[in-house]
Amino acid sequence: MSRIAYVDGRFVQFAHACVHVEDRGLQFGDAVYEVWAVRHGKLFDEQGHYARLTRSLGELSISPPMGMNSLSIVIRELIKRNRLTNGLVYLQISRGVAKRDHPFPAHATPSLILTARHANPASADAKAVKGIKVITRPDERWGRVDIKTTNLLPNLLARQAALDAGVDDAWLYDRDDLITEGTAQNAWIVDAQGTLRTRPATHEILRGITRQSVLALAQGAGFQVDERAFTRAEARSAREAFITSATSFVTAVVEIDGTVIADGRPGKLALLLRQIYLQAQNTA
Amino acid sequence: MSRIAYVDGRFVQFAHACVHVEDRGLQFGDAVYEVWAVRHGKLFDEQGHYARLTRSLGELSISPPMGMNSLSIVIRELIKRNRLTNGLVYLQISRGVAKRDHPFPAHATPSLILTARHANPASADAKAVKGIKVITRPDERWGRVDIKTTNLLPNLLARQAALDAGVDDAWLYDRDDLITEGTAQNAWIVDAQGTLRTRPATHEILRGITRQSVLALAQGAGFQVDERAFTRAEARSAREAFITSATSFVTAVVEIDGTVIADGRPGKLALLLRQIYLQAQNTA
Repeated sequence: MSRIAYVDGRFVQFAHACVHVEDRGLQFGDAVYEVWAVRHGKLFDEQGHYARLTRSLGELSISPPMGMNSLSIVIRELIKRNRLTNGLVYLQISRGVAKRDHPFPAHATPSLILTARHANPASADAKAVKGIKVITRPDERWGRVDIKTTNLLPNLLARQAALDAGVDDAWLYDRDDLITEGTAQNAWIVDAQGTLRTRPATHEILRGITRQSVLALAQGAGFQVDERAFTRAEARSAREAFITSATSFVTAVVEIDGTVIADGRPGKLALLLRQIYLQAQNTA
Repeated sequence: MSRIAYVDGRFVQFAHACVHVEDRGLQFGDAVYEVWAVRHGKLFDEQGHYARLTRSLGELSISPPMGMNSLSIVIRELIKRNRLTNGLVYLQISRGVAKRDHPFPAHATPSLILTARHANPASADAKAVKGIKVITRPDERWGRVDIKTTNLLPNLLARQAALDAGVDDAWLYDRDDLITEGTAQNAWIVDAQGTLRTRPATHEILRGITRQSVLALAQGAGFQVDERAFTRAEARSAREAFITSATSFVTAVVEIDGTVIADGRPGKLALLLRQIYLQAQNTA
């Protein structure tokens, strides 16, 4: 069966899904995106992603190309046409196609792209059992990474630097040596006092939907949670470290800059939170 | 006559020129670009733009899709097919199409897009006679704006904020209150000592090709030139202020944050440098 994408109001063959060369997403990064995990045909945190999408569009004064209820119907149809059980759905909305010029065009129609992709859940699960290794890198991104835009080049470069260094990913740190987040994941630790720590959702980090869900679940389960930034040194000496994201859910970090975290195995709390999160999503 | 674009090895109708939805330029901003002004059929600063393009690609480890000599032949053919006498040529190179994933793909083929556009030189010239007004805005861009990438959203937002404020453009300033540059132009002043000042080409500004040409021409003409950053206050109290870019050449700034520069008319040096630059290009 061939893959199907949805581009500007039409379901099309993925192989032929294209946008005009003057799409502002392509020429300017004038676009936002979202990614949903799909497991057992279910969209994880579906509403949370719509809420963030609405916020991202609002921050950039891009009109939503359709209402969120209609979008939900289109996404379900895309999942059906791709016979997607496990994998992910990718959405991108740009300000539209217009003669190349910096100012917002008066009459462009925002463009919507949706793609679906199969992925074996076993590979993400295997990673979670083993944990990942990270290095730290200076955060060189722009000032509004809370908006989920496609201006992702600094993220790519940090990720590639991590791979080149023989590890899985990078955690970024600011001028005060405080960790902001990963290249596409929020960063967490369990500190020396046993408190769950993650940076508050200001302009310096992406407002992760999985982060938000895990925060609520952790609080609900009675854990001590503190939305407070931590230094690189605190990260390296943490009891546990982990990431949250739409595709990795909750995944332990077992090494930072060559320093093994605790005994080098995924922490108990990280594993428990992953379990709680998956359970909550599957029964939602 | 309909417009012709060049996309991945083929001349195509501009209206149908498109890229796949998984082009990394579209999904990640994993792309660089260049713009050449064309006057009387001549490409301004042709070689300078090739040199910068080569550098941008190198900084991002993107292989050039063709050599610069071949590129020059394709651009000339594009100009011919579009019967372009006055206007501009736009080039964009991305890392290519690949399954969406942050790391650099092992086997993607870099994609090349070229478009050409007619523009009446009279409108740029009219702007230069009148001068432009700017506001200043905090520079929120990422740490490597010396690489000419398509991660341009902060530039768009600053430009739009300027238009919303009723002026033409914005000059950006860093944490030390020093002007970095405009949203798509390098920033210059003539200071109280009569010295031409523009910020040195470090990672904080784009290495403008027009900036470089004007620097050399100004030095050649015996002007005092100092590549040294200036504050917002110095800009507002300057004898003259102006911008350089591939499409505006040299254009005076006559108002900054509501403060009129000198007598509110384009400065003599700015007008002279524009004339010298145009002359040098036309006789190159």
